[in-house]
Amino acid sequence: MAQILALSPTKPPHRQEPNALAALTALIADDMMAVNEMILQRMSSQVPLIPHLAAHIIASGGKRLRPVLLMACARLCGYQGERHRKLAAAIEFIHTTTLLHDDVVDESDLRRGRASANARFGNQAAILVGDFLYSRAFQLMVEDGSIDVLRILASASSVISEGEVLQLAAKNDCTMSEQAYLEIIRAKTAELFAAACRIGAVVAARPSAEEEALRTFGLNLGIAFQIIDDVLDYDAEQTRLGKALGDDFREGKITLPVILAMHRGPESERAFWQRTMTELKQKEGDLAFAQDTLRRHGALHDCIERARHYGTIARDALGLFPASPIKTALLDTISFTIERRF
Amino acid sequence: MAQILALSPTKPPHRQEPNALAALTALIADDMMAVNEMILQRMSSQVPLIPHLAAHIIASGGKRLRPVLLMACARLCGYQGERHRKLAAAIEFIHTTTLLHDDVVDESDLRRGRASANARFGNQAAILVGDFLYSRAFQLMVEDGSIDVLRILASASSVISEGEVLQLAAKNDCTMSEQAYLEIIRAKTAELFAAACRIGAVVAARPSAEEEALRTFGLNLGIAFQIIDDVLDYDAEQTRLGKALGDDFREGKITLPVILAMHRGPESERAFWQRTMTELKQKEGDLAFAQDTLRRHGALHDCIERARHYGTIARDALGLFPASPIKTALLDTISFTIERRF
Repeated sequence: MAQILALSPTKPPHRQEPNALAALTALIADDMMAVNEMILQRMSSQVPLIPHLAAHIIASGGKRLRPVLLMACARLCGYQGERHRKLAAAIEFIHTTTLLHDDVVDESDLRRGRASANARFGNQAAILVGDFLYSRAFQLMVEDGSIDVLRILASASSVISEGEVLQLAAKNDCTMSEQAYLEIIRAKTAELFAAACRIGAVVAARPSAEEEALRTFGLNLGIAFQIIDDVLDYDAEQTRLGKALGDDFREGKITLPVILAMHRGPESERAFWQRTMTELKQKEGDLAFAQDTLRRHGALHDCIERARHYGTIARDALGLFPASPIKTALLDTISFTIERRF
Repeated sequence: MAQILALSPTKPPHRQEPNALAALTALIADDMMAVNEMILQRMSSQVPLIPHLAAHIIASGGKRLRPVLLMACARLCGYQGERHRKLAAAIEFIHTTTLLHDDVVDESDLRRGRASANARFGNQAAILVGDFLYSRAFQLMVEDGSIDVLRILASASSVISEGEVLQLAAKNDCTMSEQAYLEIIRAKTAELFAAACRIGAVVAARPSAEEEALRTFGLNLGIAFQIIDDVLDYDAEQTRLGKALGDDFREGKITLPVILAMHRGPESERAFWQRTMTELKQKEGDLAFAQDTLRRHGALHDCIERARHYGTIARDALGLFPASPIKTALLDTISFTIERRF
């Protein structure tokens, strides 16, 4: 991506932490420790396969981005209590269910550079343990007892699963528009970011303007996050991502880089995308050709530009809140999300 | 099963409707009509694949046993309102999610005599639409707004998915005990029956003794129901069931009939069960041999006896409630559940 960024004349000259998310996480270190403990505790079951499989995907880490956002937003709102920890664990469980079910649906073998849960434990266990973790999320929310929070997460869950079905139905559809792509990633990814951030204001009992501001922040950060995820799948430096490079290409999952290249390229290239992504007739060298085509059309570069647009909306949404170390770290996290290489 | 029942010297001489469940349903006809309408309405989505697939499994019918029980129990408790309809729809959606995910896990091709949703629409769609319907159930409960109901169904969901994982982990395990079997069916089937019946008392704001009585009724009815389902899989007259006969046998799913036969038979028969159900090395004539073996050991007969035991507990649980047409129909439904041939 260094090369891509070097091509960008509009790269904003913002100050940026080497890893702003780590800095944000450090500001809520006590919360994170408590949430990690709660996650371990609440994924337990007398059925040994459950914690065994759950540990494989949850305990192995990942960025815990959604719980961090929820708790940081609560602290941004001046929240002093501990309710947000339980809800942060619930959000991570919901997210984990979608990861488990997605990997089965996508027939993925790798997740964060390790064997995916379905590859290691079988599709059947991945489906059912996903269901279990979702029910645990539901229990955590009920224990919290806020019907407002329950409503937000029930609605988010519904939108997420609609987004997943939409993505499945559009799979291998080379004629997908940028708008259709945006609607899918908004539903399947950004909605949970939005719910997480919004809940920060709800637990702090802040006015609806702040709730809406944090929803806007989360939603647009989530869109930017997913666009960049989709860029990284074609980025040459991505062996570090853990995700095998070119997963989306091999599955024929149409993402923004391909949509932009499709619309900018000649007929002959459209035939290439049709053959490789719709008909899934791929041969040696196709991925390299795809990467070269994206580069020629500036597709990855312009995806990052698009992501910056959503990042700007997220940034402005935080304008309502007074300056604080948490706010600075949240702002840095926007940039980090967009400029990250992993 | 006529033959099995003819073997039974202890068959109780109770009066029984030809189809007691239909009679019970007729007593709450308005509720049922409203719930069917709500189910159709709430499974809708702008993503066409969702109602399309959902209609295949939900609109095609089935007995709607769980919603009927919930609403009948509410009426038994003297409930006059309409809240129970929304919750009955939620229960049916939760049940449908487990059917969809189960069929993927079991690789079933048939459900109620038609192509299963996974066979018709693919495993991926079945998983994701299952998730969607579960989130719709969650939304219906949140709209109802009772944290008590939410707690009951969150807990039931958690137990159900633990039961499913337990069943998966025990699959093909010929050494499964009767107790382990009971724990699995209690979790995966009876818990949702119990929740449905209990919610009838909760919406009617009845004292906890009645809530507990209906929980007992539902739990034991659910256990009896599942034992009979497992019997019917080996019953020669079951082409009418829709379920292809011998599904459990072919999958190597260990159920009570096999457990009883295993414990009663000689070493040579244990080798047969080991080969067919654990190693899944099955050949022509094995299912017929299995059926004959079950018959020789009186296994199906004794499973029905076991089911009657749970039916008796369910029957006694209704003792608290005054006589009424609904109560009579609920009592008849216990017998129907046990003596049914489909």
